[in-house]
Amino acid sequence: MPVNLKPPDPKSLLPVKGVSLGVTEAGIRKADRKDLLVMKLETGARVAGVFTQNRFCAAPVTVARQHLSMLDPGASIRALVVNTGCANAGTGKEGVATARQTCNELARLIGCSAAQVLPFSTGVIMEPLPVEKIAAGLPACLAGLREDNWLAAAQAIMTTDTLPKATSRRLKVDGADVTVTGIAKGAGMIHPDMATLLGFVATDARLNLPLARALVARAAERSFNRITVDGDTSTNDSFMLIATGRADMPEVGDVKSAAFDALLDGVSAVAADLAQAIIRDGEGATKFITIRVEGGRKEVECRKVAYSIAHSPLVKTAFFASDPNLGRILAAVGYAGVPDLAVDRVELYLDDVLVAKNGGRSPGYREADGARVMKQSEITVRVLLNRGTAAATVWTCDLSHDYVTINAEYRT
Amino acid sequence: MPVNLKPPDPKSLLPVKGVSLGVTEAGIRKADRKDLLVMKLETGARVAGVFTQNRFCAAPVTVARQHLSMLDPGASIRALVVNTGCANAGTGKEGVATARQTCNELARLIGCSAAQVLPFSTGVIMEPLPVEKIAAGLPACLAGLREDNWLAAAQAIMTTDTLPKATSRRLKVDGADVTVTGIAKGAGMIHPDMATLLGFVATDARLNLPLARALVARAAERSFNRITVDGDTSTNDSFMLIATGRADMPEVGDVKSAAFDALLDGVSAVAADLAQAIIRDGEGATKFITIRVEGGRKEVECRKVAYSIAHSPLVKTAFFASDPNLGRILAAVGYAGVPDLAVDRVELYLDDVLVAKNGGRSPGYREADGARVMKQSEITVRVLLNRGTAAATVWTCDLSHDYVTINAEYRT
Repeated sequence: MPVNLKPPDPKSLLPVKGVSLGVTEAGIRKADRKDLLVMKLETGARVAGVFTQNRFCAAPVTVARQHLSMLDPGASIRALVVNTGCANAGTGKEGVATARQTCNELARLIGCSAAQVLPFSTGVIMEPLPVEKIAAGLPACLAGLREDNWLAAAQAIMTTDTLPKATSRRLKVDGADVTVTGIAKGAGMIHPDMATLLGFVATDARLNLPLARALVARAAERSFNRITVDGDTSTNDSFMLIATGRADMPEVGDVKSAAFDALLDGVSAVAADLAQAIIRDGEGATKFITIRVEGGRKEVECRKVAYSIAHSPLVKTAFFASDPNLGRILAAVGYAGVPDLAVDRVELYLDDVLVAKNGGRSPGYREADGARVMKQSEITVRVLLNRGTAAATVWTCDLSHDYVTINAEYRT
Repeated sequence: MPVNLKPPDPKSLLPVKGVSLGVTEAGIRKADRKDLLVMKLETGARVAGVFTQNRFCAAPVTVARQHLSMLDPGASIRALVVNTGCANAGTGKEGVATARQTCNELARLIGCSAAQVLPFSTGVIMEPLPVEKIAAGLPACLAGLREDNWLAAAQAIMTTDTLPKATSRRLKVDGADVTVTGIAKGAGMIHPDMATLLGFVATDARLNLPLARALVARAAERSFNRITVDGDTSTNDSFMLIATGRADMPEVGDVKSAAFDALLDGVSAVAADLAQAIIRDGEGATKFITIRVEGGRKEVECRKVAYSIAHSPLVKTAFFASDPNLGRILAAVGYAGVPDLAVDRVELYLDDVLVAKNGGRSPGYREADGARVMKQSEITVRVLLNRGTAAATVWTCDLSHDYVTINAEYRT
């Protein structure tokens, strides 16, 4: 059961002019489920993305990176194709060949070059991509293309997700109405190094390509790059921004403009909603945990401490048990690898309850207060390092029996 | 149920001349269990240790470090005192005071200075040490001191361990008979940065103090520092070497001597047995996994890859399920953070089965072979990086439902 997460209301998902979506049941791994998505873009869209830093990156990540970098200045990406059921990762040269075949086939059907198509895959690692099933499914995707098809698209990219993740926002940018709509998937193998498993955010805003690239990188840092389920960085992480430029506004061309800031805030908000939805639907999650580390010398040390807490199996099982065994959090702070950390200056809060200070339990702390907060389904852990002004936030979930069950039975 | 681990045979545990051990039921946390140990040393013993690198190190670690460094050249450590049930960690200044009180009380009883006593604690973090119960139990420990009491000592330091860990070896050093006997405890919060939760190895060998220090550090690198259950580095890790000097041999005084090598091999073998026993008895463990990474440029990168695999919850749950979902191992290799790792040169073996090469599944690999090895209770994962001559080995266990159960219920 996901933590305080509902299926998206179809009426809340706003079409983005210039993007149409079609899905089908291609039977890639299992029958009777949507497992193939085509996102078709009108000409002129700016597309930028960030990808996994895993050295064993999937073949589609390799091909998508190539296509983005080799695109002619005058050309634009015309389609994204996403399959679930097979990650096409750990598949060597053959995997790259099948990812290219997928692009070739879609390019032929819609009449563009293969480099104008970006491929994405998610599912089991080290199994060959059934490219013939994908090719067979593409015409049905194209026949069903619609601008108001975002919910079906979110459904078609799910693996162990229990709910589709999709959200929309309307922004004002330079006085113009701008729409931002995004979808994402992911529940396990979640510790994105550049982006989450798969996230796609589209907007009709007009901005040039360098700005699209800057925007997607910065939005990832505020959203997908700040979540973890299990510390396992996937081979397939990809977060793509599509800017169709169909909104009635001048092109944004300066990262220092108010328009860029407004767009960054809007895109980041959509991406953070999606990233948090992934945690709420994290494998076996029963609690949604926000870890906020403040008062560090640099942001990087705040992130280290936050991830040390977020990855500790002992901390995560204590959350699952609603057990205020909070010394485990101090232990995780202590081994986070922050040089010269003075532990007697560290303060630990659980929501508004001061748990520890001066290197030990706070004199005013009563276990009943800790127990009260631990019972909640949403908990904020706040650690004050008291040695600087930097801060960082990470979102995570607990470690439950269902996580073990799901991952011990994933392929069966 | 521990993995291929039996209780030590009391007859196999060899006394070490100059070390006597006494235990009692002090009622520190639970009634009717041995929870307090005194190891009394005759004068002249060399004692050296390595301790946790956790910044939130426990009060007894702080005090033991101080006592070892402030000891007069002519004096020697006369006793070690170990309690279970309370870690005395995350307890601030008060914790240091209670650790000192424990030393003072034992020093008074045996007639030495407090600096000649080393304190050790293990158990729950962030709870005050019940020093009055410890003081009340010390006379019973002293009344029961015996040289052949190693099994009772191993029992008295257990927490979530299901079996005591103790082992002995006889060595020939410079033609002399030398005995090495050790005990250890630990099952969770196991990812020692310098040593495991608690390990004590005694020998009657004669060696000077600088060599004892060198020996304990090197032996830790070959044993306790190469294991992980859950990646949680404890606040209390301590690995102590006691050399009583009672064997009939000249004092070892040179790290480049054959005698030092023989001692290092013997002490390391005892320490590795104990470290592996901790993994076999790891919380919820059903499998004992050896991870061997070869062909790295440096040992540190081999260790990075080995720990990345050993800490991956997805890899660990796959072992629990006996599921050859081995792409998860490739993913963990890929995100280990080895710069410029050429994944198409990586080879992955499961025992003698070649699973992956050239960046993907080996053409000759059959899933039935992987499934056969995954069913075993002892499995070796071998990763060849094929870019150098360095290697590293790490021992770990799987992640099971029982791990979650044990840690969700530890305090109740």
